[in-house]
Amino acid sequence: MIKVERLLINYKTLEEFTNFRDYGAAELSMKDDLNQSIVENDSESPFYGIYYGKKLVARMSLYQIDGDFDQYFDPPQDYLELWKLEVLEPYRGKGYGRALVDFAKEFEIPVKTNARQSTGDFWSKLGFEPITYREERDRGESPYVWFPSGVYEQKKPKEKQSQE
Amino acid sequence: MIKVERLLINYKTLEEFTNFRDYGAAELSMKDDLNQSIVENDSESPFYGIYYGKKLVARMSLYQIDGDFDQYFDPPQDYLELWKLEVLEPYRGKGYGRALVDFAKEFEIPVKTNARQSTGDFWSKLGFEPITYREERDRGESPYVWFPSGVYEQKKPKEKQSQE
Repeated sequence: MIKVERLLINYKTLEEFTNFRDYGAAELSMKDDLNQSIVENDSESPFYGIYYGKKLVARMSLYQIDGDFDQYFDPPQDYLELWKLEVLEPYRGKGYGRALVDFAKEFEIPVKTNARQSTGDFWSKLGFEPITYREERDRGESPYVWFPSGVYEQKKPKEKQSQE
Repeated sequence: MIKVERLLINYKTLEEFTNFRDYGAAELSMKDDLNQSIVENDSESPFYGIYYGKKLVARMSLYQIDGDFDQYFDPPQDYLELWKLEVLEPYRGKGYGRALVDFAKEFEIPVKTNARQSTGDFWSKLGFEPITYREERDRGESPYVWFPSGVYEQKKPKEKQSQE
C-alpha cells in the first residue's frame, strides 16, 4: 500500500528536496520564507510525496488554477497544474509515479502537466492525452492533460482580453 | 566568428531538431503544419540557431510577449521569452550558447528565461538575474531575467483581472 502525503514545510522536507534533480527557485523560495518566518514551520506546501521509511522517495507539486484563466478545457473550469513529478532513481518502477498521479486524479477536476522529452508513454499509460500545441499558450511545453468525464479540449482560443 | 541565423521551417531543419534532447510538442507541431501545408516550406520559425558546416549544433527559441501580459518588468513592456536553448554535447564550451543569448539581448528589450537546475551560473555570467519566485506566476519555473538599462523587476503583482 503506497501512501501519498501532503508535505509540510520544514527544514527536514527542504533538505530532502535537495535529493531531487528538479530543484530550483520554488524550493529556494520555500526555504527563504521559512528562514524569514514568512511561513510557519510545518505549514502545508504545494508538494505531495511518498516516504519509504523516513526517506522521501517521490514527489510532485499540485496547484489549482482558477477557471477564469483556463485555456485548456471545455467547459472552462478550475483545474490542477501538476509539475515536479519525480521518483528518486533507485525507487523507480515500483508504481510510485502512478500513485502520485492517481492521487491528483481523485480531485475529479482536469489535470494538466508538461511532459518532458520521452515521458509521453508514461503519461499515456496513465490516461493522459497530448493536446494541440499552441505557440502563444504553450511556449515550448508539451502539454498533456487528463479529462474527467464530460470535459473536452478547449478548441478555440478565447479572444485576447485587453488588460488596460 | 559565430553566426546566428533565424531557422526556416523545412524537413531538413525538422530532421536536425531530433538531435536535440529537448524535442517535443513544439517541434512536432511544426512538422504537422508543414505536412498539412498550413505553413509554407522555408517559412520563418521562432527558432534561431548556429551551424557548424552544414550541421545545426545550437539553437534557441524566442517569442515576443505582449506588454499587456507582462508580469515581470517595471515598467511593464514587451519582452522576449527565451527557451529551448541547447548546444549539442560535442560542441559545448565554444561560446555558442553565449552567442545565442547575446543575439537575444541585441533586441534591447527585456529577456526572460526558465533556468533549468544547475544552469544558474551560466545565466549569471551572461548578465541574467534570478527574480523573486511567485508560485501563482512561476509554477515551478526558475525565472531568470535580463534587464536593459532603466528596466526593473515588477515588484507588486498586478491586480487579478476578471475575464468575465
